Amino acid sequence: MGSDIRALLAGVRDGSVSIEEAELQIRREPFVDMGFAKIDLHRKIRQGQAEVIYGAGKTAEQISGIITVMKARGQDRILITRLDPEKAETLRGNTDFEYFGQARIGLIGGMPEPDGLGTVIVATGGTSDIPVAEEAALTAEYCGNKVTRLYDVGVAGLHRLLSHSDELMSASVVIAIAGMEGALASVIGGLVDCPVIAVPTSVGYGASFHGIAALLSMLNSCASGVSVVNIDNGFGAGFLAGRINHPMRLS
Amino acid sequence: MGSDIRALLAGVRDGSVSIEEAELQIRREPFVDMGFAKIDLHRKIRQGQAEVIYGAGKTAEQISGIITVMKARGQDRILITRLDPEKAETLRGNTDFEYFGQARIGLIGGMPEPDGLGTVIVATGGTSDIPVAEEAALTAEYCGNKVTRLYDVGVAGLHRLLSHSDELMSASVVIAIAGMEGALASVIGGLVDCPVIAVPTSVGYGASFHGIAALLSMLNSCASGVSVVNIDNGFGAGFLAGRINHPMRLS
Amino acid sequence: MGSDIRALLAGVRDGSVSIEEAELQIRREPFVDMGFAKIDLHRKIRQGQAEVIYGAGKTAEQISGIITVMKARGQDRILITRLDPEKAETLRGNTDFEYFGQARIGLIGGMPEPDGLGTVIVATGGTSDIPVAEEAALTAEYCGNKVTRLYDVGVAGLHRLLSHSDELMSASVVIAIAGMEGALASVIGGLVDCPVIAVPTSVGYGASFHGIAALLSMLNSCASGVSVVNIDNGFGAGFLAGRINHPMRLS
Amino acid sequence: MGSDIRALLAGVRDGSVSIEEAELQIRREPFVDMGFAKIDLHRKIRQGQAEVIYGAGKTAEQISGIITVMKARGQDRILITRLDPEKAETLRGNTDFEYFGQARIGLIGGMPEPDGLGTVIVATGGTSDIPVAEEAALTAEYCGNKVTRLYDVGVAGLHRLLSHSDELMSASVVIAIAGMEGALASVIGGLVDCPVIAVPTSVGYGASFHGIAALLSMLNSCASGVSVVNIDNGFGAGFLAGRINHPMRLS
Amino acid sequence: MGSDIRALLAGVRDGSVSIEEAELQIRREPFVDMGFAKIDLHRKIRQGQAEVIYGAGKTAEQISGIITVMKARGQDRILITRLDPEKAETLRGNTDFEYFGQARIGLIGGMPEPDGLGTVIVATGGTSDIPVAEEAALTAEYCGNKVTRLYDVGVAGLHRLLSHSDELMSASVVIAIAGMEGALASVIGGLVDCPVIAVPTSVGYGASFHGIAALLSMLNSCASGVSVVNIDNGFGAGFLAGRINHPMRLS
Amino acid sequence: MGSDIRALLAGVRDGSVSIEEAELQIRREPFVDMGFAKIDLHRKIRQGQAEVIYGAGKTAEQISGIITVMKARGQDRILITRLDPEKAETLRGNTDFEYFGQARIGLIGGMPEPDGLGTVIVATGGTSDIPVAEEAALTAEYCGNKVTRLYDVGVAGLHRLLSHSDELMSASVVIAIAGMEGALASVIGGLVDCPVIAVPTSVGYGASFHGIAALLSMLNSCASGVSVVNIDNGFGAGFLAGRINHPMRLS
Amino acid sequence: MGSDIRALLAGVRDGSVSIEEAELQIRREPFVDMGFAKIDLHRKIRQGQAEVIYGAGKTAEQISGIITVMKARGQDRILITRLDPEKAETLRGNTDFEYFGQARIGLIGGMPEPDGLGTVIVATGGTSDIPVAEEAALTAEYCGNKVTRLYDVGVAGLHRLLSHSDELMSASVVIAIAGMEGALASVIGGLVDCPVIAVPTSVGYGASFHGIAALLSMLNSCASGVSVVNIDNGFGAGFLAGRINHPMRLS
Amino acid sequence: MGSDIRALLAGVRDGSVSIEEAELQIRREPFVDMGFAKIDLHRKIRQGQAEVIYGAGKTAEQISGIITVMKARGQDRILITRLDPEKAETLRGNTDFEYFGQARIGLIGGMPEPDGLGTVIVATGGTSDIPVAEEAALTAEYCGNKVTRLYDVGVAGLHRLLSHSDELMSASVVIAIAGMEGALASVIGGLVDCPVIAVPTSVGYGASFHGIAALLSMLNSCASGVSVVNIDNGFGAGFLAGRINHPMRLS
Repeated sequence: MGSDIRALLAGVRDGSVSIEEAELQIRREPFVDMGFAKIDLHRKIRQGQAEVIYGAGKTAEQISGIITVMKARGQDRILITRLDPEKAETLRGNTDFEYFGQARIGLIGGMPEPDGLGTVIVATGGTSDIPVAEEAALTAEYCGNKVTRLYDVGVAGLHRLLSHSDELMSASVVIAIAGMEGALASVIGGLVDCPVIAVPTSVGYGASFHGIAALLSMLNSCASGVSVVNIDNGFGAGFLAGRINHPMRLS
Repeated sequence: MGSDIRALLAGVRDGSVSIEEAELQIRREPFVDMGFAKIDLHRKIRQGQAEVIYGAGKTAEQISGIITVMKARGQDRILITRLDPEKAETLRGNTDFEYFGQARIGLIGGMPEPDGLGTVIVATGGTSDIPVAEEAALTAEYCGNKVTRLYDVGVAGLHRLLSHSDELMSASVVIAIAGMEGALASVIGGLVDCPVIAVPTSVGYGASFHGIAALLSMLNSCASGVSVVNIDNGFGAGFLAGRINHPMRLS
Repeated sequence: MGSDIRALLAGVRDGSVSIEEAELQIRREPFVDMGFAKIDLHRKIRQGQAEVIYGAGKTAEQISGIITVMKARGQDRILITRLDPEKAETLRGNTDFEYFGQARIGLIGGMPEPDGLGTVIVATGGTSDIPVAEEAALTAEYCGNKVTRLYDVGVAGLHRLLSHSDELMSASVVIAIAGMEGALASVIGGLVDCPVIAVPTSVGYGASFHGIAALLSMLNSCASGVSVVNIDNGFGAGFLAGRINHPMRLS
Repeated sequence: MGSDIRALLAGVRDGSVSIEEAELQIRREPFVDMGFAKIDLHRKIRQGQAEVIYGAGKTAEQISGIITVMKARGQDRILITRLDPEKAETLRGNTDFEYFGQARIGLIGGMPEPDGLGTVIVATGGTSDIPVAEEAALTAEYCGNKVTRLYDVGVAGLHRLLSHSDELMSASVVIAIAGMEGALASVIGGLVDCPVIAVPTSVGYGASFHGIAALLSMLNSCASGVSVVNIDNGFGAGFLAGRINHPMRLS
Repeated sequence: MGSDIRALLAGVRDGSVSIEEAELQIRREPFVDMGFAKIDLHRKIRQGQAEVIYGAGKTAEQISGIITVMKARGQDRILITRLDPEKAETLRGNTDFEYFGQARIGLIGGMPEPDGLGTVIVATGGTSDIPVAEEAALTAEYCGNKVTRLYDVGVAGLHRLLSHSDELMSASVVIAIAGMEGALASVIGGLVDCPVIAVPTSVGYGASFHGIAALLSMLNSCASGVSVVNIDNGFGAGFLAGRINHPMRLS
Repeated sequence: MGSDIRALLAGVRDGSVSIEEAELQIRREPFVDMGFAKIDLHRKIRQGQAEVIYGAGKTAEQISGIITVMKARGQDRILITRLDPEKAETLRGNTDFEYFGQARIGLIGGMPEPDGLGTVIVATGGTSDIPVAEEAALTAEYCGNKVTRLYDVGVAGLHRLLSHSDELMSASVVIAIAGMEGALASVIGGLVDCPVIAVPTSVGYGASFHGIAALLSMLNSCASGVSVVNIDNGFGAGFLAGRINHPMRLS
Repeated sequence: MGSDIRALLAGVRDGSVSIEEAELQIRREPFVDMGFAKIDLHRKIRQGQAEVIYGAGKTAEQISGIITVMKARGQDRILITRLDPEKAETLRGNTDFEYFGQARIGLIGGMPEPDGLGTVIVATGGTSDIPVAEEAALTAEYCGNKVTRLYDVGVAGLHRLLSHSDELMSASVVIAIAGMEGALASVIGGLVDCPVIAVPTSVGYGASFHGIAALLSMLNSCASGVSVVNIDNGFGAGFLAGRINHPMRLS
Repeated sequence: MGSDIRALLAGVRDGSVSIEEAELQIRREPFVDMGFAKIDLHRKIRQGQAEVIYGAGKTAEQISGIITVMKARGQDRILITRLDPEKAETLRGNTDFEYFGQARIGLIGGMPEPDGLGTVIVATGGTSDIPVAEEAALTAEYCGNKVTRLYDVGVAGLHRLLSHSDELMSASVVIAIAGMEGALASVIGGLVDCPVIAVPTSVGYGASFHGIAALLSMLNSCASGVSVVNIDNGFGAGFLAGRINHPMRLS
């Protein structure tokens, strides 16, 4: 950002930019104000990532409007999360639109080629955790990562998990997704030496309290190298995995 | 209890027992009322188990008084749980008194010979769980069980646990004791085919919430055959293990 | 498991098995990977119990697929828990399929003969707890146990419970199921000398908090010999009761 | 209150009271303002009860000051609850002062003669609940009630409670005090036909959560006729029992 | 109960009753076992109150069956609480059946004449609390009490409450019903000198947490003489008020 | 209130008002009792504010009845909050009725001219918070305030908020509305020197716990000058902002 | 802030300020970095308020260091909150230092003259709430407000509060401080037409949960115009009251 | 692990290792069993990290014993976390022992040279968060990372944080540490494009609930790329940052 300000100030000194305009420019932020939403068009540059639309709590019209603005400004690949099938239906007009029902994800512009450091593994404790896992996996793919899925490898049948030890130990990030008691994160955390992102899910009943049991379990993991995102937050885990798997962007 | 009543009624019929006395007898309960406590002297017969004194919330004088009454009535083996060292000091006068500091358990009359069906395994996730584990192990021994201790076998280093697979798989009951995320119970539950008693401990900090994380984790165990007792309740686990390991008493 | 490894190693020594293949074999776990689920076919051998399908969070197609694989591998008796009536309807094609609506349990292959040590008693505090109780009772029967049902014997009318004292005192396990204040477990725990498995239910309103009141009450039972499973977890209680009632399997 | 206002207005009409003074009088409330406390001297008249000093959160000096004012105004019998032994020591100067250590209650002016309708029974689940029970019992006695104490009659040994059935069934109010699972209130509630006041105590550990388990249990009592006061609130229970036992005061 | 046992024992002595039969009689409890429910027919005698059917969690068929048995045994006045309009419809066949929609209460046999000591006041903080209040009021009327309703007198407009001071101060019991912050109970508790039964309701939103805010507020009432029942438990409050208002039954 | 009482007392002195009538007058409160509701007609005078109808928990008939009474007594501007579209439909008969669907607010009599000290800013973290924001904004306008809306200025894109620094710093009150982590209130609190009213919303999922995360975050704001209202309580915030923005009414 | 930037830019245009220096100036923030703390010296200008030191979690040395820097920069009036008596002792060297023990507040430079619009009333429910109230009152005085203290006016004795109606109704802000059930805020909220700041305190026991009961009660206040700060946050309430009472600063 | 097994199998084939011994070897895990602890000596190889001793819940003797064993096995650099000053004193005998009091960390063998990809920034909201921050910073340094500390940059004074924008934007990982409302993580998350590890601290009072407010706030961060560790878990954050900053170890 420093160079922008410097250029602007140079313009002020040589008179090509008025003081008033410069002040305005410094204050003016690079987003489009649509009233109900302020679309951030510089984030790609500033944070090295394309914009993602969080679909929950937005109407189909609002989502559609945001897409139109984004496309007009040159954004050709867009991910929409938490997108209900009904809302997805209204977006079919976009020629390059795909919908992933289990993950409730919409995609415009297709997936990019993977360009990350290694592989992201997405593992689940059970079958019921798959929707969250798919949200994580698709997000990671959208962020340019190669993804391996290991589903239904919960700790009550350890051999199912241990049979994949080699894959686990060669991953660059593991996303461990589980409801109920959430022990998967700790067990994987003890097996691998890469970062583990734990995602508690709301799968379970009774004293699972819609994911609290798994959340607390994961926060208290006795294994090192484990961090946690919100309950059912597959997107957050996939996005973060992408960042960890792209350390070169930092230089 | 049926035969007692029958004998009493026979006495009434043959006149050797008056109606009033019989009524009194039926109502009169088999305990000694000390004001602050009602000592149950028939429990040994009724429930096949010697009396245990829960030391917390009782003064040294109260505990001492209860012991005196019990001994006078022929109870020669007594376990006192949650016994502070200070209170234990005041009981040293009992010649056959032993104190187990780590478990905060006092014992009068020594341990019995094991006469249970198999072995009770007491496993802990970490070193800090040992006080609760010792309470469980000593209680189980007091109830006539052979006990094997497996300490510090938490899931973050699975190989420590798996190296004891044979012992685990030949136990008749396993007591799985862990704080933090409490995943030990689920992992053991998936390895063995005997009942597993899970004991959450208050070991941990922050979001362990003094054992709530482990408690919820254990209640939500995805492994079958696991049940749970109160946080830090080593006594309850040891006692229950003894019952499970003595099925013959039922016949 | 020891002998398998030994045989394999013998094959390695005599050259009939290559090192690479042996390594693979040791790592390869005995389950069928269906993508969305990994079916454990050795559990019957390893844990002395047939596979049970947890129906919640699985589609009718997934359940159907798992059944097909199991049957193909010789599993002729299958229990499906948490099975909605709609999903049950799609399983009617299996000739030996039965559906228990109140318990939401599906059964393939009929119930086995009871071969346990004694009787499992399933007691409830009220009428509303019966669905959970039936899940427990049917599971226990599926695991080879004789079951006695005592419904609506809550502590607000103690005489209803006390009139069954003889049955209670001759049971080998009691499953105590109650919502609201969950006091049933403590009262039964004080009457019997066999293990008591307490199941809190979500029956109640207001400060019952969907079963939390009963759960906490049961965890704090002042009676010894009581352990607790998850809220509404009839299956877990029935399964554990079966293990306790079959101690001979251990030898 | 009606007649006071009427007299005042009569005074206004006949000119013996100025309008300003009458307005002041109507607004002026019958209490002594000591800055840190406003002592209510009319409560005895208005609510038929002597003033009680809640000792917690007040310094010894503040308590002493309040007593002095009360006595000066003719209040000769005063109860001080939650009074630490140290503060009690500073009140020894009052010649008619008594201190009940277990209940942490101070009393000035001695106990009145009982003049209530029947007997108030104070029952506890265990020995550790006695301090709360004594607070309840002494308060009830201070409010003019005959009190019977039944301590250590918890539901894990039902016969201890049932042996007192006759006393329970002839009480006019029962105060049921218990920590841990708090089942005592429900069981007593099912036995008697008088109001039952349940007092959860903070006795217990782990998932008793300092009385929450007992509190929830009691709020969800399946027995009718049970109401609940705050955790450890022996005073509140004793006071309310006194009101219930003195219905004649209402006429 | 004493005289029954005595008569029985006399029969045993004179040979008119066999020992076996007497034993059976002592054990046999006075209820009808319908499988899904055990109907208590002696409660009226034992507890001086007619049976009430808790409708929630029972099917229309179960409720209907219980009514049939009760009527056959001479119970001619029955209250059914938590009765959905749909279930109520199926009970229209009973000629003397009335349904109170707001309170979700069904009544068979009409209301009795009030025979209590004084008046029960049912007060609510707002309009939305009326359904719970009607449950309380109708229950109290069913238990033989005269009831006065004071609705929408919440503390945010104190004058609405204070305008009824005279009625409040002459009541024998006040039931204070409020959601949101539940302050009504404390304010009334400070005005009256009769017992106050506080009923928190689930009225409110956000941090009212379905009645928890009101529940906690009421449990912590700084006014003496207040006790609390479960959230939305209008029945429990009405029933208890009836007991307090009928102290003569005790003699 | 003082002058009313004074006038009345003067009337008593000069005999134009009888003592009985005066007493009645003093006690009689200025509201209309409709049974299900007590409408406060003097609040406008007493609290300088028109009556608002809280629509939740009231039937369309009840709301309609209250409006009729209010209008008959001269209240020509009425706000109805938490008004469902269905209920709103039934109020269309009122000629001057408007309905704001997003805010679920009904309005009779139109908005007044703003007459407050400065501008009230209503800011939201995201698009999903807009319904709560509109409730706040419309309420503030109804109370005579000029309102500026700043929507979707959450802290994850600080520049969107900072671009409005000038507006924020010249406001007389800021209402900061956010779900999820609720950080908006703290950040705004650090930027402005006017009072900030924080409104947590139930927007979010998982560990947002329906607004608890935002509520706690806001209560713990490290910025000074921030206070909090209930989750989703847009009305409360708008009303309070109006009071702060009208300090002249106090004189 | 606008004019500063403008001046700077003018300097750049006329060459008196280099581009590099201007950029630095824009970025450089007006605080002193002491390593463990960054002292904000411009806040007085930016937010119209002197700096306050939050003493909790800072060592006496750290506090002393901050005071030295502040004084060196011309800050001659400093408030230190949450200051333990021990730490206060070490600050006695400052000649103009005062310590208010009950409020745990230190003050350097004395109190300013009140220059606010009206009076701030600080009211408490009981005597135990006074420490929090004094923190609020002293903070408000420090911020230039006239303060009236009304202590021990809890709702259980309404007349104590109502006797101060006139004062309450002429206040410009009321701070309502209460523990236990926290009803004071609602009752005051219904009496006054100025903003009410509610402060829950941790005073109470059992189900007060260290202030949660009062907090929830206040958040759910049925009175309008009430907002809430953190438990025991007297400082926050006093500071906010000062802002509300100084609306002229905005122009 | 693969090559070890392969070597062993090769030994079996050529007869240098017996089958029995090989089986034993495979099962035998590479740790030293000290009874109270099982020290993992292969973790360095297996997970690329030296062993760390978690000091809480271990006695000084236990810690000392573990150090002795580790050193004997060639471990020359050891970190001990949660080490009380008293226990630290007993370790002074180790010549190369250092103690960091604020962080409660003990170090044997000195810090290694940084060899990570970039810089780890450790930022705190306030001064009171520094102990947790130092635990994180020292751990990260121990794991071979260059660390920059930014303390007291909380969001209530945004300019303090924004003045470090350049440093933040060039970090490879940021650890955001805050108590109270925990907003720091979201604000930083919106500024940077590297992974952010959020650490809630128990700093705060009242409704901070010992870190729960910050924990929930961080879990609900509206910024992407943020994950969370346990309350006060500086070690976990520092360790994980090290893993993220050393992606090359994966290849």
